[in-house]
Amino acid sequence: MRAAQALRALCISRLPRPVSDIFTSKPTSYLRAPHFQTTPYSTSSPQQKLAADMHPHIKRSTAFKSLDDADINHFKSFLEPSQVITDQSEVQPYNTDWMKKYRGQTVVVLRPKTTEEVQKIVRYCNEKKLAVCPQGGNTGLVGGSVPVFDEVVISLTLMNQVRSLDEVSGAFVADAGLVLETADNYLAERGFIFPLDLGAKGTATIGGNVATNAGGLRLLRYGSLHGTVLGLEVVLPDGTLFSNLSTLRKDNTGYDLKQLFIGAEGTLGIITGVSIMAPRRPNAVNVAVLALDSFELVQESFARAKRDLGEILSAFEFWDQAAAEVVHKYVSHVKNPFMEGDRPAPAFGVLIETSGSVKEHDDEKLSRFLESLMEDSIVTDGVVADSETQAKALWGVRESITEGLSRAGAAYKYDISMPVPKLYSAVEDMRERLASKGFFEQGRVARVVGFGHLGDGNLHLNIGGPQYDKEVAEAIEPYVFQWLKELDGSISAEHGLGLHKAEHLHYSKPDRMISIMKQIKDLFDPNGIMNPYKYLPKS
Amino acid sequence: MRAAQALRALCISRLPRPVSDIFTSKPTSYLRAPHFQTTPYSTSSPQQKLAADMHPHIKRSTAFKSLDDADINHFKSFLEPSQVITDQSEVQPYNTDWMKKYRGQTVVVLRPKTTEEVQKIVRYCNEKKLAVCPQGGNTGLVGGSVPVFDEVVISLTLMNQVRSLDEVSGAFVADAGLVLETADNYLAERGFIFPLDLGAKGTATIGGNVATNAGGLRLLRYGSLHGTVLGLEVVLPDGTLFSNLSTLRKDNTGYDLKQLFIGAEGTLGIITGVSIMAPRRPNAVNVAVLALDSFELVQESFARAKRDLGEILSAFEFWDQAAAEVVHKYVSHVKNPFMEGDRPAPAFGVLIETSGSVKEHDDEKLSRFLESLMEDSIVTDGVVADSETQAKALWGVRESITEGLSRAGAAYKYDISMPVPKLYSAVEDMRERLASKGFFEQGRVARVVGFGHLGDGNLHLNIGGPQYDKEVAEAIEPYVFQWLKELDGSISAEHGLGLHKAEHLHYSKPDRMISIMKQIKDLFDPNGIMNPYKYLPKS
Repeated sequence: MRAAQALRALCISRLPRPVSDIFTSKPTSYLRAPHFQTTPYSTSSPQQKLAADMHPHIKRSTAFKSLDDADINHFKSFLEPSQVITDQSEVQPYNTDWMKKYRGQTVVVLRPKTTEEVQKIVRYCNEKKLAVCPQGGNTGLVGGSVPVFDEVVISLTLMNQVRSLDEVSGAFVADAGLVLETADNYLAERGFIFPLDLGAKGTATIGGNVATNAGGLRLLRYGSLHGTVLGLEVVLPDGTLFSNLSTLRKDNTGYDLKQLFIGAEGTLGIITGVSIMAPRRPNAVNVAVLALDSFELVQESFARAKRDLGEILSAFEFWDQAAAEVVHKYVSHVKNPFMEGDRPAPAFGVLIETSGSVKEHDDEKLSRFLESLMEDSIVTDGVVADSETQAKALWGVRESITEGLSRAGAAYKYDISMPVPKLYSAVEDMRERLASKGFFEQGRVARVVGFGHLGDGNLHLNIGGPQYDKEVAEAIEPYVFQWLKELDGSISAEHGLGLHKAEHLHYSKPDRMISIMKQIKDLFDPNGIMNPYKYLPKS
Repeated sequence: MRAAQALRALCISRLPRPVSDIFTSKPTSYLRAPHFQTTPYSTSSPQQKLAADMHPHIKRSTAFKSLDDADINHFKSFLEPSQVITDQSEVQPYNTDWMKKYRGQTVVVLRPKTTEEVQKIVRYCNEKKLAVCPQGGNTGLVGGSVPVFDEVVISLTLMNQVRSLDEVSGAFVADAGLVLETADNYLAERGFIFPLDLGAKGTATIGGNVATNAGGLRLLRYGSLHGTVLGLEVVLPDGTLFSNLSTLRKDNTGYDLKQLFIGAEGTLGIITGVSIMAPRRPNAVNVAVLALDSFELVQESFARAKRDLGEILSAFEFWDQAAAEVVHKYVSHVKNPFMEGDRPAPAFGVLIETSGSVKEHDDEKLSRFLESLMEDSIVTDGVVADSETQAKALWGVRESITEGLSRAGAAYKYDISMPVPKLYSAVEDMRERLASKGFFEQGRVARVVGFGHLGDGNLHLNIGGPQYDKEVAEAIEPYVFQWLKELDGSISAEHGLGLHKAEHLHYSKPDRMISIMKQIKDLFDPNGIMNPYKYLPKS
């Protein structure tokens, strides 16, 4: 790889050690997204608290009927026994999210295999006023995919077939319960790529991705689902079908209603089918990790990457010194290329990925770009992956941050977005605030960590300490939300609202918009049966 | 340019004439989009028919108040005299669309300079039940931007300032009345590009572009406005402000309401500000035009272009023999490179554009791609532009088709989309249908022409004849709509619904969706004052 050689030569001439050393050891085992592994690392008691108990202001609505035997028998009249789960040990995984942070109390899980079955279920629930909780892969991060009380869980995972792929246009149509990785593999075999990628790909479903408007790792390149989704099939709260599984790239006939379901988190209906534009899969992928001295230089390198790498730039991720130190200390199988021996982590690390159709062109662009960064002293050090294994190892440096934070103790986590130039001041400001209160000295806060998708203006702000501390929590929140409000930032960049952030929506959206959202919700779901207690603040 | 040389060499070895000959004459004058020139070429009587008379089924709603002196005086109480136009000769251009196809009857045009002024106007109109017609550059194609009866025209063209550009992220914020070309020039000077381009750019406003969800020439590369628009400022029908001028690339806090206004054609509110993601401007642009023998080969070349040109492919346009012949015969200043002397036009022409950050890489990719097309006998001939002037001349071959059709006589025009493999059968089928009725023999139909944005599945189907012929019209419509319905196609790919297609919506959208659209309309605009008589079918 020419780019790798060029950069290595540069690095060697500046540094006493050959940077390729970091790759001389055996390839590190690569954890794509440790925070989505199926056995969560967060410690939780076997009898974890109920979500309802942790949110005492939320009461079960008396408007909803409680499930009884007649309801179960009705479901069994048109579903096979294996599609109606009532055994409590089998129900449990559907009641609990993967973080073991939210626990619901449903007594039945329905697993429809067809759109018609979903319609029958929903029509019945609407008539009887049974609340429902739609569920895909259950990999959400805000408690949106598990019930709060006794909502009927409707799991889409048995609806998992590819429906069609138009190999001329790339229009791909599939059931909502298809697992993201399965979809991407299917497309890869045919030379296409799913325009979304994220750590939970092995479990998350494409319907769940659309329902939460997942952002993930390919957004910088392929844009958001609002641009790539071509059409949706949705069972509306009254059981009727919203049938708009278009494969057309252009269609200007009326309000683009499908957009409302993208990111609605199951509150307006149940997505049963997805049509999406799949681009051609890039032939060549390069990954580089750079060391920088300030956030201003991180921004400068981003502006240059957009200019010099242009159409092949596919990821621009960053993390700070505190993030690198947490990985170094708590995730032993991941090696930071800049932290050999006792060397401290650089102030900032950046991961750049390029994806293109001709490898030699991409290598050349990347090489020129990296040379110019070195010549202008924008970066102090850098490495380029020489193989797919090395590329994965470099991604591991970025992707192990969440795992490291979790192993290090308790963490208060915020997924926020704001204009890129302000991005890091959220971290610095919080660090100062907590220091001024003496929390660092008192050992109640160990670190304030910032990392994320710089290209998307998306910061993951984490405050770590030995354990949960009410006073610390109150120093952070609602301060951080207020801070974001003043910057016109978002309190949820990509994770959504769910149970966690419904009541905080006013920090990101004006009252007029929230009132329209409630009107839209009432229009689609007058009985309010779809995923209740979440998403919108109580009126 | 290496690509040009390589292809030229290939062509020369296959053809007796040097293809570069077509560029030896003086550069042809380049018409970006002749169908948007300010003096329309269509002949129309000085006293053109009223839209209301041409659509006798539409009656003026008695729910709306008629404008009186008290209303005018109210508007003059907070607007300058120059912002309240009542002189009928000055009003006339706002009553008439550029095609002179639709003529309204307004007696007043208001030209607000601020969002607050728009709010004051709309609040008053809503209270008094005065119907309004929002207007941008008035370059629409379906009669959406001119009044039908006496609706108050609110022209946004005095709200034309750039508000901000974030040069790190590319987030660009501007008034809705800013002219598209002005916006693009502003961005070009700073190394960015507006992610939309279309023939009417010199007149069309960015707010009007968003209101009509304009597609245009850059959609293949940068995607639709649903993906690139970051936020909107909209004056709602009750005069309150929908303030969501976000510059964030990611924001998952509630329903993405701004999407409803994109393509709503002014029926839900008046867009006053637009925030959009501006990509870096590509350094290198190449244009090639190819000759092919069948639509199957056109599709094959498109699939290969996506594979081999990948991230640099920015346009893939096509036209048929009938289209090329019309240009050759009626637009003398445009030269088709394949029609020298008496040579007939090839069965299909294709225009490919690439845009990238490094010219030599793009040239090499294009050259390899074109060579493989020649080697595999997918194309029979081809030329590559050697300069910007030549590139514009080649674009002229594609963009003069509309002008040629118009000069040739009357034309029935359809802007439709469907799955790419079916695209051309719409033309063949129509040709057969009209032939079987003897219309060609009788000289009542001269040609059936197909061209368009192949990459977007967007066909412009035109049926040309000496003059308007009711029997021919009835043979075409609703047949063409029914045909599209069976293919799940769209009756309006990019032009919208306006007055022209409102009553045909059912061919592209199921009743359930249309009924939801009407509910959304009622929710936002209970008095129905916003751009009435258009967009949705009468209930």
